[in-house]
Amino acid sequence: MLDRAIVAELREAVGERYYKEDQESLVTHSYDGTPMLQSLPDGVIYPGNTAEVSAVMTILNKHRIPLVSRGSGTNLCGGTVPVQGGVVMVMHRMNDILEVDLQNLTATVQPGIITKRFIEHIEGLGLFYPPDPSSMSISTIGGNIAECSGGLRGLKYGTTKDYVLGLECVLASGEIIRTGGKLMKDVAGYDLTKLLIGSEGTLAIVTEATLKLIPPPKHKKTMLAMFTDLYGAARTVSRIIENRIIPATLEFMDNPTIRVVDDYAKLGLPLNMAAILLIEQDGDFETVERDIELISEICHAEKADQISIASNQEEALKLLTARRSAFTALARLRPTTILEDATVPRSKIADMVLEINRIAQKYNVQICTFGHAGDGNLHPTATTDARDHEEIHRVEEAFAEIFEAAIQLGGTITGEHGVGLVKAPFLEWKVGSAGIAIMKNIKQAFDPLNLLNPGKMFAKETRRRVVLNRG
Amino acid sequence: MLDRAIVAELREAVGERYYKEDQESLVTHSYDGTPMLQSLPDGVIYPGNTAEVSAVMTILNKHRIPLVSRGSGTNLCGGTVPVQGGVVMVMHRMNDILEVDLQNLTATVQPGIITKRFIEHIEGLGLFYPPDPSSMSISTIGGNIAECSGGLRGLKYGTTKDYVLGLECVLASGEIIRTGGKLMKDVAGYDLTKLLIGSEGTLAIVTEATLKLIPPPKHKKTMLAMFTDLYGAARTVSRIIENRIIPATLEFMDNPTIRVVDDYAKLGLPLNMAAILLIEQDGDFETVERDIELISEICHAEKADQISIASNQEEALKLLTARRSAFTALARLRPTTILEDATVPRSKIADMVLEINRIAQKYNVQICTFGHAGDGNLHPTATTDARDHEEIHRVEEAFAEIFEAAIQLGGTITGEHGVGLVKAPFLEWKVGSAGIAIMKNIKQAFDPLNLLNPGKMFAKETRRRVVLNRG
Repeated sequence: MLDRAIVAELREAVGERYYKEDQESLVTHSYDGTPMLQSLPDGVIYPGNTAEVSAVMTILNKHRIPLVSRGSGTNLCGGTVPVQGGVVMVMHRMNDILEVDLQNLTATVQPGIITKRFIEHIEGLGLFYPPDPSSMSISTIGGNIAECSGGLRGLKYGTTKDYVLGLECVLASGEIIRTGGKLMKDVAGYDLTKLLIGSEGTLAIVTEATLKLIPPPKHKKTMLAMFTDLYGAARTVSRIIENRIIPATLEFMDNPTIRVVDDYAKLGLPLNMAAILLIEQDGDFETVERDIELISEICHAEKADQISIASNQEEALKLLTARRSAFTALARLRPTTILEDATVPRSKIADMVLEINRIAQKYNVQICTFGHAGDGNLHPTATTDARDHEEIHRVEEAFAEIFEAAIQLGGTITGEHGVGLVKAPFLEWKVGSAGIAIMKNIKQAFDPLNLLNPGKMFAKETRRRVVLNRG
Repeated sequence: MLDRAIVAELREAVGERYYKEDQESLVTHSYDGTPMLQSLPDGVIYPGNTAEVSAVMTILNKHRIPLVSRGSGTNLCGGTVPVQGGVVMVMHRMNDILEVDLQNLTATVQPGIITKRFIEHIEGLGLFYPPDPSSMSISTIGGNIAECSGGLRGLKYGTTKDYVLGLECVLASGEIIRTGGKLMKDVAGYDLTKLLIGSEGTLAIVTEATLKLIPPPKHKKTMLAMFTDLYGAARTVSRIIENRIIPATLEFMDNPTIRVVDDYAKLGLPLNMAAILLIEQDGDFETVERDIELISEICHAEKADQISIASNQEEALKLLTARRSAFTALARLRPTTILEDATVPRSKIADMVLEINRIAQKYNVQICTFGHAGDGNLHPTATTDARDHEEIHRVEEAFAEIFEAAIQLGGTITGEHGVGLVKAPFLEWKVGSAGIAIMKNIKQAFDPLNLLNPGKMFAKETRRRVVLNRG
């Protein structure tokens, strides 16, 4: 609990009822979407506008109290767990769509708006905002910006960073800055907009965002291709792209995932397949028809055992369900589900899946793999039990080895989930000690007192690298 | 001239013949594409590989000597003028295409490669790299990265920052870092890749870049629409985009530019037009045909006086020539040509052009305006004479007022040319004093001794803002 005088100042800033420190509020904001991490804050604050955010931050800065800003906390890296206590700032009251500008094709929103609500509003106006993280029915745009969220449409359309044109932010000092604008081009100084996206709340508090909208595709088609040969599936991914086709969606599920999904969703999937690819193309009618035909030919040439092309919206939805329900299906298996996102160049997908399987076997843990094959972003997912410390230890060892394998294949430790607490001990593996030093200096440049989401991104100690013994 | 012992160290690092300090070399590297700026360096160095760049930087860092890295110096912001002396590092020897990866659709290049040579190589492989700055037959990819270059295809395809996936850089300390990779997604730490793009050589020396390639469009169509009503042309720009069409190119020329271009290129353009729009669409055959038809309808509805649609490649080239020759045509008029790039939300194009005309008249200077209407990026261009100090003063006052007008319309002081020396006194107008402070801290984070391209981006003093008297 904070000093009474400080609490009085905070309540003065936002109104009595918008600073809470009852046990229920503290516990509710002590964790996020990441399993096995919890730490109580000293208080929870709900600002109603930018001026209040600035006032709160000025008070906290004066008293050297840490602040963790958050939306719905659906992140998977422990990004919003208040590990050093202090105040959790929940942005849900600031949830307006301030403007949709049809001439400039931009939308200006507050950070607390739910992603799906925003997308539905935009689609209702005949426009398109592509980033669609799996958590979108709960997640907020502010959270998506903090984590640079991706989704199923990332291959063709990019991720959150490709759609943020400008930001209003409150700095650790309480000062307000504006970056970018309704501008497709702006090179006035360093690109703070892009730097802030994916900075996980460690550099500033986002209070407003101007987003780029695009015309929606006119037509869409969905197909599944199933392979008994894992390499056939992987080669298909590469060959589609080599053939100059960038599908809107190009998703992958391995055999263990297929089994679990089918058991859950009763889709009648063939359980003997090594891999299923879910492929969607969108665009003009002729383009879509031609691309889907070409993709089918490639699947045949790579000896797909079965190809289903949806002939209508309902069938498409059924095929999509297979992939969309992967996480939910896996989460039913055991008490604890740990979803990771090692990412490799897309030509290395098959190598990476084989490495994951080898490592799972070595540590005797259950890991199912699915993910965004088109952009090399895999989600190896361990089903385990947090109460079994010995097993959890093996799971952690396995993931460390998976990260090492990703790095050795030219990949990264995280494609879309962020570093937060969970990946901090591994960050140096990707960016090197000089990279870590520069990033720490950047943190210092924004937040010299280390008040914004402290303890994230940078670990006290980097994990020792694993020696891979491939079989 | 540097101390002999230091010169000996530098010659040891790169080889005798690759460090020069003869008068010709110094003068040649004392200026760049920007008029009226010149400052002699102490020496010019030509490294052959990353290790040599690192060795040179280590030596300069030890002796606290400034370094300006550059390619062909085609920038228009004084970005590579060595205002504090020191060593100019020319990247032309490091000009290899190291790899084109057809599976991952990436290319890895050294910074000294000429943009056009790279684009032609890529197109020869049936692939597409969109950024096409006007200077591309001379400019280098490294220079494009330093300035975040745009071009005629920016509206639909984005600028350099949208195509750089990873970098190898040498820091001011001489250390080498790698950012990103052949990865469509990577959120491991702060996005240093995007931060370095457009940082104008003030944060690090780029020694290698991994670029994203995309499938080329299958078909392309080009048209000109001419308007006696400036607002009709401007409304056409907005209405095309409102109608959910994003053309590949959507360029604008005002009446003074039309006159000068026609006089130069003898194209038979109608000289009574207030504005000409050059429009290109690319993509699949059906898409292009439909979009061009819709665009023609919009042009008609907005009372275009004349519409020409190219029926073949030659005719298209002729239409493109009108726009491509604008700068060359203007440069013939008077001894000095000053090309600026104030940028506004695209809905404000007409307002901005009227402001430019009002301001030109007020200061009695000749300003022609052309540019990328689709992304609001205008190039008001003054034809003047550097020897006439009184006139140059009026030109400078006019541009200050143009920047103020752009800011007031929700725009920025530079859309694609960069800050460098020329815009430094205006940067605070766009980013505010808190923004400047953060950017200076970031500079400090990378380059604590201020050795990399010192004197750029940040001015000793911000210019006083102009009071606009419209009407």
